[in-house]
Amino acid sequence: MSDFPKFVEFHEEGVREGFQMEPVTYPRAQRAALIDALSETGLRQIQVGSLVNPAKVPQMADTLELFADIKKNPDVRYTLLWLNESGYRRASTVQGAFNHAPLMYYLTDAFAMRNNNRTAMEMRAEQEAWLDRYRADGAFPQKVYAMTAWGCNLGGPVSQETVVDAFRHAIGMFRDRKLPLPPLYLADTMGWASPEEVKRRIGAVRELAPEAKIGLHLHDTRGLGGANVYAALSMGVSLLDGSIAGLGGCPFAGHKARQTSGNVCTEDMVFMCHEMGIDTGIDLEKMIEASRMAEEIIGRPLMGRVMHSGSLKAFREGRQADSACVSVP
Amino acid sequence: MSDFPKFVEFHEEGVREGFQMEPVTYPRAQRAALIDALSETGLRQIQVGSLVNPAKVPQMADTLELFADIKKNPDVRYTLLWLNESGYRRASTVQGAFNHAPLMYYLTDAFAMRNNNRTAMEMRAEQEAWLDRYRADGAFPQKVYAMTAWGCNLGGPVSQETVVDAFRHAIGMFRDRKLPLPPLYLADTMGWASPEEVKRRIGAVRELAPEAKIGLHLHDTRGLGGANVYAALSMGVSLLDGSIAGLGGCPFAGHKARQTSGNVCTEDMVFMCHEMGIDTGIDLEKMIEASRMAEEIIGRPLMGRVMHSGSLKAFREGRQADSACVSVP
Repeated sequence: MSDFPKFVEFHEEGVREGFQMEPVTYPRAQRAALIDALSETGLRQIQVGSLVNPAKVPQMADTLELFADIKKNPDVRYTLLWLNESGYRRASTVQGAFNHAPLMYYLTDAFAMRNNNRTAMEMRAEQEAWLDRYRADGAFPQKVYAMTAWGCNLGGPVSQETVVDAFRHAIGMFRDRKLPLPPLYLADTMGWASPEEVKRRIGAVRELAPEAKIGLHLHDTRGLGGANVYAALSMGVSLLDGSIAGLGGCPFAGHKARQTSGNVCTEDMVFMCHEMGIDTGIDLEKMIEASRMAEEIIGRPLMGRVMHSGSLKAFREGRQADSACVSVP
Repeated sequence: MSDFPKFVEFHEEGVREGFQMEPVTYPRAQRAALIDALSETGLRQIQVGSLVNPAKVPQMADTLELFADIKKNPDVRYTLLWLNESGYRRASTVQGAFNHAPLMYYLTDAFAMRNNNRTAMEMRAEQEAWLDRYRADGAFPQKVYAMTAWGCNLGGPVSQETVVDAFRHAIGMFRDRKLPLPPLYLADTMGWASPEEVKRRIGAVRELAPEAKIGLHLHDTRGLGGANVYAALSMGVSLLDGSIAGLGGCPFAGHKARQTSGNVCTEDMVFMCHEMGIDTGIDLEKMIEASRMAEEIIGRPLMGRVMHSGSLKAFREGRQADSACVSVP
C-alpha cells in the first residue's frame, strides 16, 4: 500500500548548494535576480546562502548582502545556513535570518572533522547548546538533519542504527524541554541512497517518532535521485530539499574526471509530483524559466531535464509538437 | 506489496539509439570497439544499429558492415532494427540478424505517418504479415513493442485502453497461430511516463496476458526515468532497454534550446538493481568503462551519473575517499 502525500513542500537550495560548488563567484545582482524569480514560482522556502569561512567558500562571502538585496515575498521563508557560532553571529545581524535554524548531526567522524573540525560525537553534544541558544534568541529549529544518512565517501557505509541513534538524541533534547519536534531530515549528502533503503530508513525513523514529519535532502550523484524521491513519496514524505536545474554538482571539468552531482533537480521532482496528482503550490512553467535563468548565469548546460525538454503542458493543450523528440522506438 | 525480480536482463541500445541522434557519423572502428567492450560486460543483448533510409539516418548507413566487424561473443544476442521490408531484406543478408525480429505497434497516426508513412491501423494490419514472414524465414519475434505507450509529442496523450488494445491484437495473432507469446514491451518513446502510470499500465497488460513477460523501453526526457524503472521493478518487470551513458539525447546545442533526452542510462539502472540486490549478470565497473569510452568517442560530457561519480565499490572496500564529493549538508 502506498501513502502518497497530498502536498509536497520544497526547499529550494540551488542558490546556496549550487553556487557554492562553482569555481567562480557570480555577480550578486544576477543571484538576487534569480532568487527574485524563484520567489514568484510559488516556492515557500528558498535558501539564500551560507555563512561559512569566506577563505574556504568565497562564493558565499557576500551572503548577507545578497540577503539584503532580494525582494522579500511575504509568502516565502528565506533561509540561511551556518555551521558554527561565527556564522550564526553574522546571521543574527539581519532580520528574518533565524527562520531556519537547523540542527546538524554528523554520522561519521571523517566528515565531521572535514566539515567542522570536530568528531561526530562532539558535534552531537554541541546540538544541546545550539538548541538552547536558538531558544534564547527567539529562533526555533525548523529542521534536524542527519547527514550522510546512507553512507559517506570519507567514512564509508552508515548503518540504519546510526541514523536512528542520532535522531533519538535529537528527540530526547526536544522531549526534555517539552518542545514540539521539528521535521527530521535524512540527508544523502554523497549519493549513497537507493530506493528500498530510502523506504527502510524512513520506516525506522517513523517508528522512532511517529509524530514527526520526515524530510529528505537527496543528491542525484549516481542516477537514483528520482527513484529515491518516488520511494519517499510512497512512504508519505512531504518535505523535500532540491536545487533548480539539478545544481550543486561539479562543472563538466573533464570527460574522465569524476564529477559529483547536485541535489535532485527541483523542477523535475515538481513535474513528477504533478504527474502523480500531488500538489506543490509551484508553477512548473515559472520554475523552468528560473532554471533556464540559472543556466544562463552559469553559462553551461545544466543537468535538469524538464528545463530542456519542456513540460507536457503545451503537448496536452495541443499546441506544440516538437519534431526534435521523434525517435524509434 | 512489492514483487521485485531476482534478475533483470538489459538490452543495450546506446550504439543504435545514441549514435542515430548524433549530428555526425563516428568512425566505424570506434563503434565496433565500443560494441566489443560492451560484449565483455556481461550484457546479453546489444543492439548494433538500424537498417533504415540512409538518406534520412546517414549515421546508420553502414550498420551491416559494423555488424560484420564486431567480435561476436557467443553469450550475446546482437540485434538489428528495421522498420520496413527494404531494411528487413538488407538484414537478411547477414547471419544472425534475425534474432530480434520485433513487431511494432504505433498508437498514434501522427507518429506512424512520421516514422513509417502509414496510419497506426495500417501498421497494425501489417504486423500479421510481418509475423508470417518472420516464421517463414525461421525468425521468431523476441519483442512486441507498443510505442508512445504513455503519450506522443505528435499525437498527444495515449489512453491505457489504446495500449491494451494494441497488445490484444498482438496476443490474438500469436494465439491464432498457437505460438507462445514473446515479451510485450511498453515504450515511452517521448518521455511521457510517470511512475504510478507505469505501474497502472503494466498492471493492465499483465491482466490481459498473465503469461507474458513485460519489458520497458524508457526515455529519461523529463527526469523520471529512474523512478519509472523502480516502479516497473516493483511490479516484477525483468526486461529493460537502456543506453550506456544515457545516450540518445540531442547534444547540448544551446542553453535555451529544447533538448530531448536519451534512454534511461543502462549503467545507472544496473547500479540501482545491484543496490537493491537484483542480479543483472553485468559487471558494473566494465559498463562504466564502456560508457567512458562512448564519452571519449563522442567528445562531450554525457548524461550518465555513475560513469562520472563512480560506483560505491571503492568506497565500500575502504579504498578511495573522493574529496570532490564533500558538500553540506
